[in-house]
Amino acid sequence: MVDSRAKKLFSAVAADALVTVQDDLRFYVTGFNSSFGVVVTDKSGTVLYTDSRYLEAAQSRLSDSGISVSEYPRGIKLAELLADYKSLAMPFNRITASEYNDLISAGYILKDSAPAFKSAMSVKSAEEIQNVTLACQATDKAYCELLPQIKEGMTENEVAALLEYLMRKHGASGTSFATICAFGANASVPHHETGATKLRYGDEILLDFGCKINGYCSDCTRTVLFGDDGKHAEFKDCYDKVLTAHMLVKQEFHSGMTGRQGDAIARDYLEKFGLAKFFTHSLGHSLGINIHEAPNLTPTDESVFSDGMVFSDEPGVYIAGRLGIRIEDTVTLKDGSVCSLTNSDKKLTIL
Amino acid sequence: MVDSRAKKLFSAVAADALVTVQDDLRFYVTGFNSSFGVVVTDKSGTVLYTDSRYLEAAQSRLSDSGISVSEYPRGIKLAELLADYKSLAMPFNRITASEYNDLISAGYILKDSAPAFKSAMSVKSAEEIQNVTLACQATDKAYCELLPQIKEGMTENEVAALLEYLMRKHGASGTSFATICAFGANASVPHHETGATKLRYGDEILLDFGCKINGYCSDCTRTVLFGDDGKHAEFKDCYDKVLTAHMLVKQEFHSGMTGRQGDAIARDYLEKFGLAKFFTHSLGHSLGINIHEAPNLTPTDESVFSDGMVFSDEPGVYIAGRLGIRIEDTVTLKDGSVCSLTNSDKKLTIL
Repeated sequence: MVDSRAKKLFSAVAADALVTVQDDLRFYVTGFNSSFGVVVTDKSGTVLYTDSRYLEAAQSRLSDSGISVSEYPRGIKLAELLADYKSLAMPFNRITASEYNDLISAGYILKDSAPAFKSAMSVKSAEEIQNVTLACQATDKAYCELLPQIKEGMTENEVAALLEYLMRKHGASGTSFATICAFGANASVPHHETGATKLRYGDEILLDFGCKINGYCSDCTRTVLFGDDGKHAEFKDCYDKVLTAHMLVKQEFHSGMTGRQGDAIARDYLEKFGLAKFFTHSLGHSLGINIHEAPNLTPTDESVFSDGMVFSDEPGVYIAGRLGIRIEDTVTLKDGSVCSLTNSDKKLTIL
Repeated sequence: MVDSRAKKLFSAVAADALVTVQDDLRFYVTGFNSSFGVVVTDKSGTVLYTDSRYLEAAQSRLSDSGISVSEYPRGIKLAELLADYKSLAMPFNRITASEYNDLISAGYILKDSAPAFKSAMSVKSAEEIQNVTLACQATDKAYCELLPQIKEGMTENEVAALLEYLMRKHGASGTSFATICAFGANASVPHHETGATKLRYGDEILLDFGCKINGYCSDCTRTVLFGDDGKHAEFKDCYDKVLTAHMLVKQEFHSGMTGRQGDAIARDYLEKFGLAKFFTHSLGHSLGINIHEAPNLTPTDESVFSDGMVFSDEPGVYIAGRLGIRIEDTVTLKDGSVCSLTNSDKKLTIL
């Protein structure tokens, strides 16, 4: 199963060997998670070189995979390990200039494997979608348990820490990115740095959070009110528009459409109310092993979306110093249509 | 103050401009934390280019720093922004092959700024040491609060999640690396992946953890027993040896010694008892903005250590399937001697 990934990638690069050293890409190629290793795929097969810490686990895990496992020879540089080859394919957007220059100096011809990885990783297997789903379920459970524990006077940091703790309790190995928790006007900054601001009655709360399970990410944003102080007419009106934009994407986006067309569903709807100018980021991004993958749903991404892609649907409206609303689910395309993987309540919640 | 960092780095590279785009290095040069920006230092001064999200905060924060702040011109590539220069210094171990090739194609001469950063960042300022100290204090407090909350049947994941929550509660913005929690024989794997193993009476518990405050890291490891089932004679003997090795480093290592000499203090002591073969990693690594910086305390690092360096002292003994013991503090060199920044109890603790 996993071996077919290596074969597919190798067939897409015109090189003697596909060489993969990055943790996330190595995990993608082998399905085995480690902090050190080199995967070499050539016309005769795939070998994972790793060190003594991982050797036993890798051999046991990959025994039926078609990938063989060897100990990385001590004291040997990559250029020496690969001496049998003339041309190597490596991802130019992920190897450093030092690594590139070392291999060029050693006489290798280097080809860029980044486009092959981008294309292969954009469509997820059933097992990958299952892992994203598990992460999304932990995310939903943690959020539901968090809400009744939010109290006046808690800091953004405390709420974020509690939410992260609950995701871990539900099986997450960690967060998929730094949790954003913004109270009141802080929510109008799309990438607010979670801090020591204390929660007050009537504040809005924006939470952007996600976790990892089995190496795969979830991503979710909810915006709620902490009590209704009667000053939230504009907030409620905008919330309604953002939620409708979010739902329109789920209803109208389908396999065969481009990222640009997906973004336009939300943006065009918000524009009817003059709100598009406050929607200051793009509609969504793919996710999987990494929280940001390709393709994206932006005003300029002409990539065609297809079944098996996993991405975020996250329209938002930010009015500086007044309010910020973002409603985000992790979704996938299945049988042509959008299927939501995070599913906690999106109706306006007043705590 | 901070401006002097840019000047010092610029004077160490023979290029028309020092160009810094990496989040951590940009934070080092400017003292301002952001997820996007380019810092350009030339003979006339330093400019931070960033986007609208950070402009106001950067201008306010850097108003007296000697660093000017400008909005990064929209739609302009880096090669175009830097058109006034012929030669650029960038860190070759941190820019990608794609970035390198793009700039070479655009006609620039590229110089490597990595050695200048490595040298400058290795000696911390008083303010930087203060920030590491704050992170170490939160680490200590969280650990002390954690111990009485550890109960039989908890999973490694739950204990790690609780420890992370407590560090956040004490002001940390997050962890400085993925927390390691290993129960029983799992502790014999130096980089055990924290999982679903449940705690049983008589287990040892190895915790390797750290957090970030004001952008600076802490790093600490403690190994304790969860009850004494009477089968721990070998463990107690090894614990005593590892703790003595740890303390010997603190007593004997001093400014002017090399990383190799530091490593040898612990390794030679353990060798007296035939334990050096179970000490399967190096003694320590520098830390600061990043959890792994240079120089290191390894059998081969000939770097000379000096006052103001911050690093870990973490000898360990791992006997496969039987036990794993590591005792680690974050320390600094002050007036020639080692000064410990993490200070929770290291006497053998039996919960």
